[in-house]
Amino acid sequence: MSPKITTELLKQLRQVMKNPKYVQEPVQAYIVPSGDAHQSEYIAPCDCRRAFISGFDGSAGTAIITEQHAAMWTDGRYFLQAEHQMDNNWTLMKMGLKDTPTQEDWLVSVLPEGSKVGVDPFIIPADQWKRMSKVLRSAGHDLVPVKENLIDTIWTDCPQRPCKPLIILDLSYTGVSWRDKIVALRSKMAERKVMWFVVTALDEVAWLFNLRGSDVEYNPVFFAYAVIGMNTIRLFIDGDRMMDPAVREHLQLDSTLEPEFKIQVMPYGSILSELQAVGAGLSPKEKVWLSDKASYALTEAIPKAYRYLTPYTPICIAKAVKNASETEGMRRAHIKDAVALCELFNWLEKEVPKGTVTEIIAADKAEEFRSQQKDFVELSFATISSTGPNGAIIHYKPVPETNRTLSVNEIYLLDSGAQYKDGTTDVTRTMHFGTPSAYEKECFTYVLKGHIAVSAAIFPNGTKGHLLDSFARSALWDCGLDYLHGTGHGVGSFLNVHEGPCGISYKTFADEPLEAGMIVSDEPGYYEDGSFGIRIENVVLVIPAETKYNFKNRGSLTFEPLTLVPIQTKMIDVNLLTQKECNWVNDYHQKCREVVGAELERQGRHEALRWLIRETEPLVQVQ
Amino acid sequence: MSPKITTELLKQLRQVMKNPKYVQEPVQAYIVPSGDAHQSEYIAPCDCRRAFISGFDGSAGTAIITEQHAAMWTDGRYFLQAEHQMDNNWTLMKMGLKDTPTQEDWLVSVLPEGSKVGVDPFIIPADQWKRMSKVLRSAGHDLVPVKENLIDTIWTDCPQRPCKPLIILDLSYTGVSWRDKIVALRSKMAERKVMWFVVTALDEVAWLFNLRGSDVEYNPVFFAYAVIGMNTIRLFIDGDRMMDPAVREHLQLDSTLEPEFKIQVMPYGSILSELQAVGAGLSPKEKVWLSDKASYALTEAIPKAYRYLTPYTPICIAKAVKNASETEGMRRAHIKDAVALCELFNWLEKEVPKGTVTEIIAADKAEEFRSQQKDFVELSFATISSTGPNGAIIHYKPVPETNRTLSVNEIYLLDSGAQYKDGTTDVTRTMHFGTPSAYEKECFTYVLKGHIAVSAAIFPNGTKGHLLDSFARSALWDCGLDYLHGTGHGVGSFLNVHEGPCGISYKTFADEPLEAGMIVSDEPGYYEDGSFGIRIENVVLVIPAETKYNFKNRGSLTFEPLTLVPIQTKMIDVNLLTQKECNWVNDYHQKCREVVGAELERQGRHEALRWLIRETEPLVQVQ
Repeated sequence: MSPKITTELLKQLRQVMKNPKYVQEPVQAYIVPSGDAHQSEYIAPCDCRRAFISGFDGSAGTAIITEQHAAMWTDGRYFLQAEHQMDNNWTLMKMGLKDTPTQEDWLVSVLPEGSKVGVDPFIIPADQWKRMSKVLRSAGHDLVPVKENLIDTIWTDCPQRPCKPLIILDLSYTGVSWRDKIVALRSKMAERKVMWFVVTALDEVAWLFNLRGSDVEYNPVFFAYAVIGMNTIRLFIDGDRMMDPAVREHLQLDSTLEPEFKIQVMPYGSILSELQAVGAGLSPKEKVWLSDKASYALTEAIPKAYRYLTPYTPICIAKAVKNASETEGMRRAHIKDAVALCELFNWLEKEVPKGTVTEIIAADKAEEFRSQQKDFVELSFATISSTGPNGAIIHYKPVPETNRTLSVNEIYLLDSGAQYKDGTTDVTRTMHFGTPSAYEKECFTYVLKGHIAVSAAIFPNGTKGHLLDSFARSALWDCGLDYLHGTGHGVGSFLNVHEGPCGISYKTFADEPLEAGMIVSDEPGYYEDGSFGIRIENVVLVIPAETKYNFKNRGSLTFEPLTLVPIQTKMIDVNLLTQKECNWVNDYHQKCREVVGAELERQGRHEALRWLIRETEPLVQVQ
Repeated sequence: MSPKITTELLKQLRQVMKNPKYVQEPVQAYIVPSGDAHQSEYIAPCDCRRAFISGFDGSAGTAIITEQHAAMWTDGRYFLQAEHQMDNNWTLMKMGLKDTPTQEDWLVSVLPEGSKVGVDPFIIPADQWKRMSKVLRSAGHDLVPVKENLIDTIWTDCPQRPCKPLIILDLSYTGVSWRDKIVALRSKMAERKVMWFVVTALDEVAWLFNLRGSDVEYNPVFFAYAVIGMNTIRLFIDGDRMMDPAVREHLQLDSTLEPEFKIQVMPYGSILSELQAVGAGLSPKEKVWLSDKASYALTEAIPKAYRYLTPYTPICIAKAVKNASETEGMRRAHIKDAVALCELFNWLEKEVPKGTVTEIIAADKAEEFRSQQKDFVELSFATISSTGPNGAIIHYKPVPETNRTLSVNEIYLLDSGAQYKDGTTDVTRTMHFGTPSAYEKECFTYVLKGHIAVSAAIFPNGTKGHLLDSFARSALWDCGLDYLHGTGHGVGSFLNVHEGPCGISYKTFADEPLEAGMIVSDEPGYYEDGSFGIRIENVVLVIPAETKYNFKNRGSLTFEPLTLVPIQTKMIDVNLLTQKECNWVNDYHQKCREVVGAELERQGRHEALRWLIRETEPLVQVQ
């Protein structure tokens, strides 16, 4: 992977930063955040502005360009990748390390007196605007909205914004009709005494209307906004997509409906002016509910006194708690996904020793096996197929320049997942196709102990996920090992593979409490720079637990693994496991064998079935 | 404990809330926070306004009085106590429970349109003012400062503000002179480019000048403020205290000093006008550093653009990391404290069966034994001496109305500590003087497992304490038990028994990372309302740990118990302990026996020594 040469681009950008055609006054710094106008984590090619200007294309990062400097903030998952992808024009700011300044503090330290810092008001979330602008102002600088995106002005071959057909999800998948979702939403709005709710996140629009799209790779969403009033529904969406008779039927666009369920379809680009009109027409006490992560531009459309901002929207919270139809769909999806991975690992075991399987070939093969499964739509994220030292690059994606050949001498880490119409998967397995070293087994076993500690944890109703994070680290910590990422994220139901408002991470605090029906990942790891990476990831469902005393009727929760793929026993140092942990592994493998075995049998995949049976032999502890 | 009858007081308060003599415009609600003008947790009698108006005298709670309602917010430690102490005029708002509204939300729900909410601007912290005033304003109400404290206007027999002599701490106790502390502070100020620092917390003033006082019971502090400039030091303090030649000598008030170390002594009451003068004289870029918890009144004295607010001040952070002299002092104090408790428990064992020992007698006896130790100053908090159901009242303090007699049939919980000139102690032991039930032993053992899990935890440098909180709960959670308080708090060095910026609590997030030299408590518990309370508390020192891989040289930390008092083995169900836990208990008891045993021997306390030796017999696990 050679870095992108950005000298010329930065020169151009610094010119437009002073060009009165684009800026009212010259800006001394320009911020290029990661997201799009919906603050999406995964973005369409036309929105990859930060990658365009810097070369760094990880999923998280913010670039800031001043006259003298170009700096990139990203987190532990991406330190190595960013270092590889960026040229010498760039300084890497390692977030999470003690001495790394915040973006605001850094700006204050480098800017000349009375500077203007520009940013696209549609891209920057309102909460971030507020925080930055406060710090900058108190240091005598100004954060200013620059209407025209300055990257777009120099990005001559910027791709078109996608506008693909929609997928309709019927009740058997969603469990609840969009009408009932609107009713539930309005009741939440009434509770909070708000008259309007603005849906800005793409997955929230998709979930609300029981529609999916493919405008953004890996995330089955489509570019749209919605504004829900107590008696009106406005959907802002472009293209011919609303001409599709099935979509019209699904949304009942041509039916005579009660007016409060009549959807007004409007152009995507008209959201700002429509919202400004809503804002201008508000009577006192009429509040408008927005996510505090909605863009500064949309937030400003509502006069301050009328805004009701929350970190998590009612849709975000409702979406996180999966109903029975969604849970059943997720179970089905995970069984099919396990079938594909059993096929893959069986195939790898035979092919790797031949020295012909590269990371890219393995990733493609995984996709091939998945695509054979019913209701497969696409992958849920770029497959992390990494062997040896590449495994230590936490969110690595193999490209020809880095593509290593799998061998019997190196650890192989595969973090992959798919979108099926009935659910979203995300699973990581770490394998050795030869003989792992004692140290590799030791590290793997600590990671496994952490995985089990979370998966088997019992905790009272109302517990926030971040409180479980250290359970995943305890065994590693005891030996002086750690990993620089969170332990888990929320997972959507045929939606984004990362979703709020719950998760398991030491980095967050404002997560919503875990409740039965929520789905998160459990993925501790260990990474040895330049050498190997280990991660064990299951998607797990929050379920009620049985406990002796049941928290004075507050209720007990635990997790049920939805992922049912064997954990390579060859990598486990059984002597480091407690009896309880050993039983957990054996019970888990027993369930994989029963549930996935039955499906492999049904699909006539006998060789993979034999592989599964061998890989799920119980561990035996020598006392 | 019968509740305080507040009908008449509330009537009077509601009258002054409309009386133009005290308020510019009538206020429809009046907030009575817990603290004093220094946001102290422990307060002088003259500052106990919330207790005066409500009867509830726990250490945490905020009262809000409207025309129709009187409501009290407090946390899980105090639910039972508040219910007992308040009459029917009051509604208890149980903080931490899901359905309990915040103070702001509750105000919005009960107030008539366009209300004024009054509060004493010297008592409310600036951060809280900001949060409340924002919510109130957005609902059409106003938070207004009421200069005259309205409680004081109806509190006819309010006691005088105390003004006791000062105690000088020499270098052998503090390790660092006040001059060197000022130098270090100014260097932190220079780093942040601030010109002034306002010391508002009483323990920060005391620490900075190496002085102690006794204006507030249990906390060796004195009423004072300080304003530190890059070349000036102003100390705001009342009374004859500055006439004491020893104090004058210590502060070098009469010496010819470099001007930047010359202390200007000013009246306590002049802080606001002096700070306003500072605020008025600032040139651009001259910032003033204040805690964001400083009072609204003092914060407002500095124009907004010149304020530099942080949650933790540089003094708070420096004070938390104890130097070698302080650590050695803390060790000595804890040995002496253990001697006193060995005497007490030995005495209790003989006396309790006679049925003559009440909670108050036991508490007094504990104080008596402590007061026999060298450099004893006073208790560090009101002794929690509680038996049977009183043990479930987490911050119980025995009073004649509630005073139970200790017996061989009930669990006894003693949470107590003292101020010695060399250190502050805080220890909880839970004992049974007869035969505990299997259930009591089961609960005790889970609490012990949690205590050990924290105490023996190994974690990387830079870990925040709140991430360790669930270690203390895991064993309880497995059986469906929990406790509604944090696991640990910072402890001062002959200073406040509760201090920031570190702690171990699921409730906090903005705590500073633990580092070697910090001192916190480790005190999980379990409480069965109406029946018993269990808590096991040690004060522990953060120390470097030895680990196999040492976190890639980031460094490893763990805890060393400073408290060395036997944990009653009679209460332990050994079968529930792992071998590792069992070894921890035996090692701990071995250390108690060696270290405290030697001191008991030295002090000729042979009977208590025999008790210690018996109580520290190793546990034996039946395999």
